[in-house]
Amino acid sequence: MSFRTIEWLDDAVIMIDQTRLPEEEIYNTYTDFQSIAEAIKGMVVRGAPAIGVAAAMGVALGARSIIADTHESFFRQLDNVCDVLGRTRPTAVNLFWGLQRMKRVAEENYSKNLDQIRDALKREAVLIEQEDQTICRNIGKWGNTVIPDGATILTHCNAGGLATAGYGTALGVIRAAHEAGKNIQVFVDETRPWLQGARLTAWELMKSQIATTLITDNMAGFFMNRGDITCCVVGADRIAANGDTANKIGTYSVAVLAKENSIPFYVAAPISTLDLSISDGSKIPIEERPFSEVTHIKGVAISPEGVKVRNPAFDVTPARYITAIITENGIVSGEYRSGLRKAAGL
Amino acid sequence: MSFRTIEWLDDAVIMIDQTRLPEEEIYNTYTDFQSIAEAIKGMVVRGAPAIGVAAAMGVALGARSIIADTHESFFRQLDNVCDVLGRTRPTAVNLFWGLQRMKRVAEENYSKNLDQIRDALKREAVLIEQEDQTICRNIGKWGNTVIPDGATILTHCNAGGLATAGYGTALGVIRAAHEAGKNIQVFVDETRPWLQGARLTAWELMKSQIATTLITDNMAGFFMNRGDITCCVVGADRIAANGDTANKIGTYSVAVLAKENSIPFYVAAPISTLDLSISDGSKIPIEERPFSEVTHIKGVAISPEGVKVRNPAFDVTPARYITAIITENGIVSGEYRSGLRKAAGL
Repeated sequence: MSFRTIEWLDDAVIMIDQTRLPEEEIYNTYTDFQSIAEAIKGMVVRGAPAIGVAAAMGVALGARSIIADTHESFFRQLDNVCDVLGRTRPTAVNLFWGLQRMKRVAEENYSKNLDQIRDALKREAVLIEQEDQTICRNIGKWGNTVIPDGATILTHCNAGGLATAGYGTALGVIRAAHEAGKNIQVFVDETRPWLQGARLTAWELMKSQIATTLITDNMAGFFMNRGDITCCVVGADRIAANGDTANKIGTYSVAVLAKENSIPFYVAAPISTLDLSISDGSKIPIEERPFSEVTHIKGVAISPEGVKVRNPAFDVTPARYITAIITENGIVSGEYRSGLRKAAGL
Repeated sequence: MSFRTIEWLDDAVIMIDQTRLPEEEIYNTYTDFQSIAEAIKGMVVRGAPAIGVAAAMGVALGARSIIADTHESFFRQLDNVCDVLGRTRPTAVNLFWGLQRMKRVAEENYSKNLDQIRDALKREAVLIEQEDQTICRNIGKWGNTVIPDGATILTHCNAGGLATAGYGTALGVIRAAHEAGKNIQVFVDETRPWLQGARLTAWELMKSQIATTLITDNMAGFFMNRGDITCCVVGADRIAANGDTANKIGTYSVAVLAKENSIPFYVAAPISTLDLSISDGSKIPIEERPFSEVTHIKGVAISPEGVKVRNPAFDVTPARYITAIITENGIVSGEYRSGLRKAAGL
């Protein structure tokens, strides 16, 4: 990869500023958990797996700043750190997964002294980041098996290196097919309102010299209907036990259009995106983001002043539209409830 | 209506500049047919019926400027005027319908002197504009019968007063339901890339105090799937003999999503939008517009420099997705081939 999404360096967290891409490739340095929380909320870092890594690193930063005489005080303050980080974005489950994993590590090290606990948390956060890269490579390895040579792949939003610790989930599948020497090209939905496709996915794919065509979201159906799209691959923010998948707003539409045109529709996501505690997608909370994301683009107004707006950031694609879910542990299709449990090692 | 889309005044054509809405309500004055052609191409005026009116007025302006000693010379130059106007935008059939109608009037008046022919053309252009307003009212009258009280109506692009000589086709239906005292609200797709929904439809509906909610195109499916949308109403740029309908890019996706969610999907259009000379939608030419409409918004870049882009301006919705086509002569559904002929008086 020719960029680094998130990294722990010299007791600080370095993140590429995704609000400023593609014009500027700027790396911000964070030294406290509050600014990590702000960065997650403000989408400096976004994408379910990357948010999981950022949250874990936020906990590690928070642990370093806690002043405590007793373990009790330390753990109480650590809970507060996790609460602040947990209140940033409600939909992607990897955030909560990352926080839970960090809490567990702290508890497992309760018998150690506070500096040892702080060290264990830092090591765990770095491990999560490193594991994520390996996981994405494995998702890519599995996903490559479903991508035919010569494929034109449609993707929505950014489930790329920028949405993970590197390589990507949906774009990991695409990268793996490209690295395997397959002659593929990618149609990228621009992904209003935040333009993750136009700003981030197009930038990533062009950097990797993968043939890229940018379209507006409402053109996807046109190209599917013409027979120009071989398959769709998207990421996920939360997958319920039955396979229903929350992902960036517009994913549901892509899936319906794919089904109507008999085009395979794949979700690529790590096991950490599974939320087996909820039975189906109706239980997934959908974040509504500021109206200004819709009414303005880069600060420029594109609609009449005072217009009423809705801005749900995610939608849920029912499992029946999903051809297969590609995880690091293999490809799940058909009976998702049992298949996902098995992929999760349960 | 609190604005005027297009008007013949003191031997000039006045048009509201739709490229500058909603920020500025500016009326441009045109005195030659070449600048009318540029205005159509540059979308100062857009919307199938409005383009038909503009083209007719362009012919009338062109006829006034022709210097000719003989009828033969006049008619040769008039053909050239029509050719220039006809090369502006390929998809909306109303453009060609307007030009044909003006040519026919010129031919019917061949026995008159040139100034009389020029006058006949001017009168015909003004008549087309006036007829369009009546037609839209009648579309509204018929359309109102399918809109239930309390409906939430989704519309795409702008098929409003701005797309016609006033009142609108799809928005004519909505206006008629509103004027009938029905408690309706409208969800407006922003309609990338040109943002006709965000810029024009939201502006028009707010001016008429009809409850309006702006969403991005990729949110339409989300709200349909939640059960928030009662029906969809859109306009049309060209309707083939079998009912297949070309309209703004993204209309096909709205129709597929409506079908998948068992929501009625209506097309509202005047008989002049019918093209009974083509058997089905596959014969409708689809305009591709400049890449900059996708890569830039109001001059601001939103994607990496040099990215490849596709920008089809229209798509074709197969008739099987269309619940009914609402014309000024009644509502057609079921067997479109015979129904449309009958509505056209054939």
